[in-house]
Amino acid sequence: MTVLANRAVILGTGLIGASLAAAGRRAGALKWVIGVGRGRANLDRALASGSVDEVSQDASAAVARADLVVLAAPADACVELLTTVARHAPDQCVVTDVASVKVPVCLAARQAGLGDRFVGGHPIAGSEASGASAAHPDLFKDRTVVLTPSGAQPVALAKVRELWERVGATVIEMEPALHDATVAISSHLPQMLAFALCATVGRAPDADTIRRLAGGGLRDTTRLGASNPAMWTAIAKQNREVLLAACDRFTAVWVELREAIARGDADALGRLMEESRRLKRSLPAR
Amino acid sequence: MTVLANRAVILGTGLIGASLAAAGRRAGALKWVIGVGRGRANLDRALASGSVDEVSQDASAAVARADLVVLAAPADACVELLTTVARHAPDQCVVTDVASVKVPVCLAARQAGLGDRFVGGHPIAGSEASGASAAHPDLFKDRTVVLTPSGAQPVALAKVRELWERVGATVIEMEPALHDATVAISSHLPQMLAFALCATVGRAPDADTIRRLAGGGLRDTTRLGASNPAMWTAIAKQNREVLLAACDRFTAVWVELREAIARGDADALGRLMEESRRLKRSLPAR
Repeated sequence: MTVLANRAVILGTGLIGASLAAAGRRAGALKWVIGVGRGRANLDRALASGSVDEVSQDASAAVARADLVVLAAPADACVELLTTVARHAPDQCVVTDVASVKVPVCLAARQAGLGDRFVGGHPIAGSEASGASAAHPDLFKDRTVVLTPSGAQPVALAKVRELWERVGATVIEMEPALHDATVAISSHLPQMLAFALCATVGRAPDADTIRRLAGGGLRDTTRLGASNPAMWTAIAKQNREVLLAACDRFTAVWVELREAIARGDADALGRLMEESRRLKRSLPAR
Repeated sequence: MTVLANRAVILGTGLIGASLAAAGRRAGALKWVIGVGRGRANLDRALASGSVDEVSQDASAAVARADLVVLAAPADACVELLTTVARHAPDQCVVTDVASVKVPVCLAARQAGLGDRFVGGHPIAGSEASGASAAHPDLFKDRTVVLTPSGAQPVALAKVRELWERVGATVIEMEPALHDATVAISSHLPQMLAFALCATVGRAPDADTIRRLAGGGLRDTTRLGASNPAMWTAIAKQNREVLLAACDRFTAVWVELREAIARGDADALGRLMEESRRLKRSLPAR
């Protein structure tokens, strides 16, 4: 199989970065992967688990030797790192990212002068777990990866697309703004609801009894409540306006549902539940 | 093993009723089970799958031959059925139920004159699936069942407790009001949030793109959104005041979270997320 990058630099060896490194190496797409991060402990885990070939805490030096750079830090750190990448990456180096928000990252790439070799990306994968120790080379198998190539050269797009396909993902292309509006509803909103539900349960007067009576419904609905705060405060910041609109869409439905309960309006409540059921049945089962 | 009931009548052969019938028969606790329901098709499924020995659409006649009656209909139907049960059940017949709301059911049992032989019950089991075709005799294995015996005779309590233990559940006893307040947060609130989230997604302008980008987070957070509307409108009605209080507890946290996003207050947002994470980690993993 063709090698896509002789020296790939992954900036951020968390769950996604370390998994992509491991998967890309296993697929023969990435020949040598340098994992870059600030925390020594997490870098050591990435190296020990064999996700990466080499680790470094010096982004500039690592990027200077790269033919592919993947930004895999929280969304706000990606935006900041683009300046460093633009300054130090060799001319032919292709740059991509995995952040859950695309408009600000793509804008920052253009402003940094990387526009024609930057391909925004977002794998719809991951979990409430985080860090290199949760990484797995099968993480992207049968998953969807959104690419937002905007002004990228075809050769850059082709390279990033092939990388994701080689690790088992299906690639779809999309405008950054459509991506951000969509994930605000499909991902960021459920995430915020899980955080708020968990905090509500934690503040309830008798949390111990709640724990004893907790069933599968609570378990699944709160799964995302254990997600990484640094990652999600960054996403909430970067996708603020669109996320607030998604929150307000939910609030409107929530108020409608609460009022139907308060009125004892079984018809209105039943209609809303049927609406929910129809949508749920139209979502992919896995 | 001792037979606990020679003729048990299960009023309602949905997921819980048919599963309890199947499990109780398999365990040798229920010798002959009569499944009673209004819908012929569901009764036929319960009979065909071997969950019950006999089916009937005549609750009064079936109950008249019973030494154990299990009310396994939606919560409001259970309240109504108690009058029929009180009128037709033999004197020594023990009566229990599986409704998710206990205060109104226990009150109705007392008012119907069943107080000393009625044992309120609620298995923390089930799923978004419904009907006899989803039934399974292992449904209660390692699950918690709450009993709210109130004024029941010890012999009635012992029989109901043993039935649940024989099908693999762990029994805990509790006052009806504490049960209802607890499940309002642990079960009814997540359920209502899932309904509202699904309806929000369904009303979003670009639901098709949302489907294409749907990941595991949306899948799990919306799992309950496919739940049975008849069952849940009944629960919302029977537990109205306590459920509204739970909804309002959530709304307060939701507003707090939304405001932190709007202000761009990463500290406040991070604290709320850490609070969520702590609670999630304290919940049972399965």
